[in-house]
Amino acid sequence: MENKKVAVIMGSDSDLPVVQKAVNKLKSFGIATEVHVMSAHRTPAQACAFSANAKENGFGVIIAAAGKAAHLAGVLAAHTTLPVIGIPIKSSTLDGLDALLATVQMPSGIPVATVAIDGAENAAILAAQILGVYNEDLASKLSDMKAEMEAKVLEKDQKLQESINQ
Amino acid sequence: MENKKVAVIMGSDSDLPVVQKAVNKLKSFGIATEVHVMSAHRTPAQACAFSANAKENGFGVIIAAAGKAAHLAGVLAAHTTLPVIGIPIKSSTLDGLDALLATVQMPSGIPVATVAIDGAENAAILAAQILGVYNEDLASKLSDMKAEMEAKVLEKDQKLQESINQ
Amino acid sequence: MENKKVAVIMGSDSDLPVVQKAVNKLKSFGIATEVHVMSAHRTPAQACAFSANAKENGFGVIIAAAGKAAHLAGVLAAHTTLPVIGIPIKSSTLDGLDALLATVQMPSGIPVATVAIDGAENAAILAAQILGVYNEDLASKLSDMKAEMEAKVLEKDQKLQESINQ
Amino acid sequence: MENKKVAVIMGSDSDLPVVQKAVNKLKSFGIATEVHVMSAHRTPAQACAFSANAKENGFGVIIAAAGKAAHLAGVLAAHTTLPVIGIPIKSSTLDGLDALLATVQMPSGIPVATVAIDGAENAAILAAQILGVYNEDLASKLSDMKAEMEAKVLEKDQKLQESINQ
Amino acid sequence: MENKKVAVIMGSDSDLPVVQKAVNKLKSFGIATEVHVMSAHRTPAQACAFSANAKENGFGVIIAAAGKAAHLAGVLAAHTTLPVIGIPIKSSTLDGLDALLATVQMPSGIPVATVAIDGAENAAILAAQILGVYNEDLASKLSDMKAEMEAKVLEKDQKLQESINQ
Amino acid sequence: MENKKVAVIMGSDSDLPVVQKAVNKLKSFGIATEVHVMSAHRTPAQACAFSANAKENGFGVIIAAAGKAAHLAGVLAAHTTLPVIGIPIKSSTLDGLDALLATVQMPSGIPVATVAIDGAENAAILAAQILGVYNEDLASKLSDMKAEMEAKVLEKDQKLQESINQ
Amino acid sequence: MENKKVAVIMGSDSDLPVVQKAVNKLKSFGIATEVHVMSAHRTPAQACAFSANAKENGFGVIIAAAGKAAHLAGVLAAHTTLPVIGIPIKSSTLDGLDALLATVQMPSGIPVATVAIDGAENAAILAAQILGVYNEDLASKLSDMKAEMEAKVLEKDQKLQESINQ
Amino acid sequence: MENKKVAVIMGSDSDLPVVQKAVNKLKSFGIATEVHVMSAHRTPAQACAFSANAKENGFGVIIAAAGKAAHLAGVLAAHTTLPVIGIPIKSSTLDGLDALLATVQMPSGIPVATVAIDGAENAAILAAQILGVYNEDLASKLSDMKAEMEAKVLEKDQKLQESINQ
Repeated sequence: MENKKVAVIMGSDSDLPVVQKAVNKLKSFGIATEVHVMSAHRTPAQACAFSANAKENGFGVIIAAAGKAAHLAGVLAAHTTLPVIGIPIKSSTLDGLDALLATVQMPSGIPVATVAIDGAENAAILAAQILGVYNEDLASKLSDMKAEMEAKVLEKDQKLQESINQ
Repeated sequence: MENKKVAVIMGSDSDLPVVQKAVNKLKSFGIATEVHVMSAHRTPAQACAFSANAKENGFGVIIAAAGKAAHLAGVLAAHTTLPVIGIPIKSSTLDGLDALLATVQMPSGIPVATVAIDGAENAAILAAQILGVYNEDLASKLSDMKAEMEAKVLEKDQKLQESINQ
Repeated sequence: MENKKVAVIMGSDSDLPVVQKAVNKLKSFGIATEVHVMSAHRTPAQACAFSANAKENGFGVIIAAAGKAAHLAGVLAAHTTLPVIGIPIKSSTLDGLDALLATVQMPSGIPVATVAIDGAENAAILAAQILGVYNEDLASKLSDMKAEMEAKVLEKDQKLQESINQ
Repeated sequence: MENKKVAVIMGSDSDLPVVQKAVNKLKSFGIATEVHVMSAHRTPAQACAFSANAKENGFGVIIAAAGKAAHLAGVLAAHTTLPVIGIPIKSSTLDGLDALLATVQMPSGIPVATVAIDGAENAAILAAQILGVYNEDLASKLSDMKAEMEAKVLEKDQKLQESINQ
Repeated sequence: MENKKVAVIMGSDSDLPVVQKAVNKLKSFGIATEVHVMSAHRTPAQACAFSANAKENGFGVIIAAAGKAAHLAGVLAAHTTLPVIGIPIKSSTLDGLDALLATVQMPSGIPVATVAIDGAENAAILAAQILGVYNEDLASKLSDMKAEMEAKVLEKDQKLQESINQ
Repeated sequence: MENKKVAVIMGSDSDLPVVQKAVNKLKSFGIATEVHVMSAHRTPAQACAFSANAKENGFGVIIAAAGKAAHLAGVLAAHTTLPVIGIPIKSSTLDGLDALLATVQMPSGIPVATVAIDGAENAAILAAQILGVYNEDLASKLSDMKAEMEAKVLEKDQKLQESINQ
Repeated sequence: MENKKVAVIMGSDSDLPVVQKAVNKLKSFGIATEVHVMSAHRTPAQACAFSANAKENGFGVIIAAAGKAAHLAGVLAAHTTLPVIGIPIKSSTLDGLDALLATVQMPSGIPVATVAIDGAENAAILAAQILGVYNEDLASKLSDMKAEMEAKVLEKDQKLQESINQ
Repeated sequence: MENKKVAVIMGSDSDLPVVQKAVNKLKSFGIATEVHVMSAHRTPAQACAFSANAKENGFGVIIAAAGKAAHLAGVLAAHTTLPVIGIPIKSSTLDGLDALLATVQMPSGIPVATVAIDGAENAAILAAQILGVYNEDLASKLSDMKAEMEAKVLEKDQKLQESINQ
């Protein structure tokens, strides 16, 4: 079974500081990742073509990050049967609420799997979970990550006990 | 100077009861109008092609109505240099706020001239105002409409005086 | 490659009218589906156990629907490495905004793939897309669905031409 | 055919840093532009007179920027048949939501073409699109701008490929 | 000392069912009241003139009711030094939030004394309080009203004791 | 006719930087002003007594400033027939929306004349307008202030003409 | 150890349909309950006195239900050291958001234990939990209720299995 | 009668700066307090077990602080009959509204006693009030705190009189 790639598309290169966390996380899972700046409004032809060909180009999941009236994830989803994950990006007004609603409130027929505002890391983990449904290696890495997260919290709690509860 | 047409595009035929008001108003101004159901997500190719060719097909303004994560106006605006007017449609949740933000909060470079939630009549008037910039006949019809609106309010006030203020 | 099942969990049986659309859609794709009422707050042990064992019980995706302070999807996601899709359910106050935020704003490490408020059909389609990443039969059904949706919009537009544009 | 001017009216000179982007953009299109501070509440007579005479003074579009309970665009629109574009300005509370709603939610009969919060550049582009409906020179400049925007995104994507995807 | 009148202005006669409560309450205080339909956008000249002349025409307070992008109260306040009370009217979308923000968030220099959404009765009481500052007869009627309200609550509590607490 | 005083009550001395603008404005009108820190929750007895006695102590208007679940204005209004003006204060969360709603959405019978979030200067002007209903000297000062505001905007516009429009 | 009573105070008798659920639930726990209509604004003296004397009158918890600018819970909390539970009541505008914020956003020093909008049953359960801290009988009834809730969900799930999953 | 302890649980150690105020306040009341980092999503087993055993381990109240889709308080409440107090924590987006709704809008059967966003001190006071229902020593400390708060406000008012009102 071929290993599918993940595409990470951002609407503007100003989104890179947030999106970078998704890229890093995907690489930490060993998932082949391709990152692009593509805009639903400024380069619609490229964005649509990328999405329309993503499946046959070996991608399994598309992650799209955009702010304000965030149409990118929805526009990509319109052109593919692959799952598309949307990251609403907080911009200078409305605290990310505009991007959240513009990403998540998709009409029937074209879902976008939306994560939290600026939730780039979770977008990567969700992509890994999706690819991990039929990939035991990835599933096992996700289990390890869960165990690590648990261990870190327990360790922080332990430290807190030493500092605060005595 | 050729008379330009107005295109009225709705994302779903369930938007027709609201959109019909725009069509009626445009016809009352004598503006040639073409109405379509086209979806940014279900028929993206048709929508993009329509918008890309609208100018050379004799259109001067595009009106786009959509609800929820309303991408339609923005997607059409991406493919044309014509002014695009967006009507956010109220749907079953969030009272139209999602459609408003998804329509109005467009990124720099691709404006959508947004009117009120369900503001179909105003979309038509705005289209007439746009075409009226260089069309004295339309400008004069808009003046008449303003005078009529004023007269109606004065008449209602008069009636109120007869009923309530004595 | 074994066909994975989809679990559809709702927090209360009052959510069934919305959730039923997800079940119907999944069945229309021929996806084996198991439906449960389980509550993050009233039957937490059952919910956690179900999620913890879902992968080895042959599930590939979990869909969770809940309203108000909708914790169900997040609680299930805490116990599995499978992708969890959250459907925020609109209840009697706040128009679904509470459920949306409680579902989508997950902390780093535990994503929930959130769809629109009451977006049950899209939850099913997203589940099919996820299973379709490595299942050509499902991917092809999704392509067919996209083509059908397109055809329906074109047909509606055609009808509109006959009624309104002449 | 005479070239129409654009008026840019701001409710307070504190709005100038945002509004300046509109002025610059209009000048980059070679559009004759007149900029004013006029207040719907502090200089209502001047504002109303300016709007009432704008058409015969050679203006084709009015852009109005205001914050908080932003009445300026609506008040100007009440006195003219020209299209009025509203820029809601973010002020110290509510993140611009007050100005957005006070600008966009206009009653039937008096539309304001609303752009994003602080969306001054888009207001200028929309004005150019409106004037460009019957002005091929402007339309062609807008096409060039679109091509440039596309080229810039492609270039940024290219740079990203060199830095991130190897 | 002359008794001042109260003007009640509504932006549309569709606001009358709400506004009527203000009129009734004012009449119950024996305050001379004049009611008008006047629109900030459809009859701006009449509205401005009414407000500019209100003081010398014997008015002491202006009450203005409007929905959506409710500019009426602010526009009236721009033309008078009389206190202007704003009633935000709930319309078909956004549950009155648009009218509330468009009424209350006035810029420095031009206050509008805003009451609750659809709070017509309170607008009348506030007008009576304002006129009552220098009118002992009105102040005494307001005291009586307070006493009556108190008595009614006590009576309702008494009834509840008889029905529920035994 | 005796000159009435204005009381300015703030819920916490941390509100003083905002409230000071009201005090300064009142003094600029020559209105006798008394300023207090009194809390609806921490010193309810003092607050209620102050309000209950305000009228006979020579006050004509009470201004109340409070943040968060801002009960102060409403609590004072419960104990007096004087007009009470509420200033919602923005605090560290929710951008002042909580204070606005807690101040303005008063139940029938007990109005609070609410101004904009942090709108202290407007609270003072509104108080002057209220006292000015029967005080020609104050009314004339308010007219002067309006004229000054107008002059300032015209001057700013003039300066703008010199810098930007040439 | 004496059994403490619970007071249920509503701001208006129109809140009774919601509040009744709290009363019923408290009675089902066998908790002595006293129900009153008392208003923070219309009968402030009675409300404050009730709260100030509640502890010595044998109450252990006060539940307060109010809508709009819901001050009741906070005003009661100002006069007692007993825990005060606030039920925000949804009224005709803003979907309960006003009451929620006016109840929960209390300033430091005076907490109100806020439950969901219209969450009367939960207010009763919370009161029982509070009294149950030192009352094993109540704690045991709460355990039973939890077990019953669990059983009901399991039963509903069982029924669903019979109807939907076959 | 045994003195019950209070557990303070935070979802992430980044919440400590806010939560510390609760801990300090509890200690100032002399209440035995145990502080933990435990996550509803990263260490669900520990969190559930802690809550399930809290009562028999001598706790009387649990305080839970969490941000974003704040499930912690609700998840703890699902496993205990003790009162659970929720502190919604403001994080980098949405100003705490997400955490507030995810904490307070609990479904029927499982209340969370919610305090203001970042209202850690009030959570501690509420815990003291709950324990104080049957503990006269604590009740008396709460009375003292109330008296102190009152004295502080009076003193601040006195200082203000010396500086501002002369």
